[in-house]
Amino acid sequence: MKTFDDRRKEADQIIEGFLREEKGYDRTLIEAMNYSIRAGGKRLRPVLLQSFGRMYGADEKRLHPFMAAIEMIHTYSLVHDDLPAMDNDMLRRGKPTTHARFGEAMAILAGDALLNEAFTIMSDETKRTLFAEDGPLLDECFGEVYATSFISKYAGVDGMAGGQSLDVETDKLGRDVTGEEIHYIYLNKTSALLEASMLAGAVLGGSGVGKDISLIASAGKDIGFAFQIRDDILDIEGDESIIGKETGQDKRNGKSTFVSIHGIEESEAFIRDYTEEAKTHISNLENVKDEEERIFVLDLFDALTERNH
Amino acid sequence: MKTFDDRRKEADQIIEGFLREEKGYDRTLIEAMNYSIRAGGKRLRPVLLQSFGRMYGADEKRLHPFMAAIEMIHTYSLVHDDLPAMDNDMLRRGKPTTHARFGEAMAILAGDALLNEAFTIMSDETKRTLFAEDGPLLDECFGEVYATSFISKYAGVDGMAGGQSLDVETDKLGRDVTGEEIHYIYLNKTSALLEASMLAGAVLGGSGVGKDISLIASAGKDIGFAFQIRDDILDIEGDESIIGKETGQDKRNGKSTFVSIHGIEESEAFIRDYTEEAKTHISNLENVKDEEERIFVLDLFDALTERNH
Repeated sequence: MKTFDDRRKEADQIIEGFLREEKGYDRTLIEAMNYSIRAGGKRLRPVLLQSFGRMYGADEKRLHPFMAAIEMIHTYSLVHDDLPAMDNDMLRRGKPTTHARFGEAMAILAGDALLNEAFTIMSDETKRTLFAEDGPLLDECFGEVYATSFISKYAGVDGMAGGQSLDVETDKLGRDVTGEEIHYIYLNKTSALLEASMLAGAVLGGSGVGKDISLIASAGKDIGFAFQIRDDILDIEGDESIIGKETGQDKRNGKSTFVSIHGIEESEAFIRDYTEEAKTHISNLENVKDEEERIFVLDLFDALTERNH
Repeated sequence: MKTFDDRRKEADQIIEGFLREEKGYDRTLIEAMNYSIRAGGKRLRPVLLQSFGRMYGADEKRLHPFMAAIEMIHTYSLVHDDLPAMDNDMLRRGKPTTHARFGEAMAILAGDALLNEAFTIMSDETKRTLFAEDGPLLDECFGEVYATSFISKYAGVDGMAGGQSLDVETDKLGRDVTGEEIHYIYLNKTSALLEASMLAGAVLGGSGVGKDISLIASAGKDIGFAFQIRDDILDIEGDESIIGKETGQDKRNGKSTFVSIHGIEESEAFIRDYTEEAKTHISNLENVKDEEERIFVLDLFDALTERNH
C-alpha cells in the first residue's frame, strides 16, 4: 500500500498538470500563482479528496480537476494570510512568501486568480460531463455539481473565510478569545476545507455514499480540530528547521490559542480524543467500496495528529 | 419601456435578496461584504445579464442568482483594487472604501468572501436544477453550468485578474505602457466581465442563442473598450461631485492611459467607433426573442459611452 508520501508526490504531479504555462502578458501573474503552488506543502486536501473518491469508487480521472482546485483554494488562503495586513509572514516552508517575492499587489492578485482558477477548473469539468459526445453523463454531473457546492460553501463565509474573519477581528481588538470563539475559528478556518475535501471526494464517487455523508462531515470536523491544536503545539515546541517557518509567533503576537487556554498536557489529551472520534466515524462508514483506502485514512489521521512538522 | 435607472433599482432589490443577515461570529465579515455591495454603483453587469437573459427568453427567477453573483464578483474586484497595495483609494462613490472603513485585513477577507459567495450562489442554483423534485431540469442546468463557466473564466487569468496584473506590473515598473498593452489591459480588466454578463444572460435563455454567441462576445469587447476610454476621459475632465471620487488620479500617478497616448479628440472618435461596432453586433443578432430588450441594450450602449459619471 502506498504511503502518504507517495500520495503527496502523486498529488504534486496531478496538480502540476493543471498549472498554466508562464507566458504572454499574464506571465508575472501566472509565475506568482505557480510559485505559490510549487512552494510545496503536505497536499493534504487533494490527498484526502482522492482517497475518499477512491473509497467510494470514483473514476480516477474525474478526481484530478477537483484535487487541483482544492489545493489552489488552500494556497490562495495562505497567500492572502501571509500578507502584511494579515499575518505579515515573510517565510513559509523555508521560502519567501508570495508577497515577499512578487510584491504585495501581485500577491493579492495571485490569490484572487488562484480562487477563480479553481472554480474555472471545476466548472469546465462539469461542462465536460454535461456536454459529453454521447449525451450528458448525468451521474457524473451530479457528483461534480455537489462537490463544487461543498467546496465553495466551506471556502466562504460558512467556512474558511468566516473562521479567518473572527481570527482577524479578535486579533485586532487585542482581547482574549473565549473557548467558544477558538472552537468556531478552528472549525471554520481549518476543519471546513478538510471536510470539504473529504465530502467532495466521496460525492464524486456517486450516489453510493448515501448516509455516510454525515459521518464523513463529523470526521472532517474532528480531524481538523486535532490538526489545528497540533499546529499550535508545534508553534510552541516545534523545530524551525523541520517546520520551515518561525516558531513562537503566537506567543510573540499575544495570540490566544487552544493551547494557551488549556495548556499542553490537556491539549494533547484533546488531540487524542478528537483523533479517536474522527477514526470512529471513519470505521463506522457503511458503504465503503475500497477497504484499503479506509485503512489509509485511519493511518493518515494518526500521522497528522502525531506529526512534528 | 423601463429606463436604465428603473433597471438599476430593480437589480439593487434583487441583489439585496442575496445578502446575508449581519449576525453571529461572522458578523463583521458580513457587514464588510454588505457595505461593499451597498456602496452602490451602476449595477451595469447585473442589468446587462438580466437584459440578455430576457432577450433570449430566460425564466426571470433563474437570472436573479447570477445577477447577484456577477455584482459580487465586480464588487470584490473593486474592494481589492482600492487596497493600499493597489490603487490606495480612500473614497469610492463618495463613501469610504471598504478598507478605509473596516481595515485592510477585513477588506482582503471581504473581497475573498464575496468571490466565494458568488460561486456558492451559482453552484447552489445549479444544484437546484439538477435535483428538482420531478427529476433534473437538464435544459436549465446546461445554461447554468455554461453561465458559471463564462463568469469564472472571464473573472480570472483569462479576464479581469489577467488585465489587472499587467496594469499593476507596468505601474510598478514605472514605464510607459505600449498601445498594445493598453488594449490588452482594457480588454481584460474592463471588457471581460461585461462580456461575461452578456454571455451568461444569453445562455441562461437556453440553446436558442445559437451562433449569436460570437456576436455577443464581440459586442462585449467593443462596449467595454469604449466604456473604459470614457472612464479615462472622466478622470481628466469629470466633475468630482458627480463621479464621487477624486479626478486627475491617472495624471498624478503618472499612469499611461489610452487618452494620454491618443489625446482626447482621437479618443472621443474611438469611443464613437467602438460604440457603433458594438451596436452593429447587437443589431445583427438573429435569434432575439424580445425586441424591446434589444432596443434597451442599444440605448444603454449609447448612454454608457456618453455618460458624465
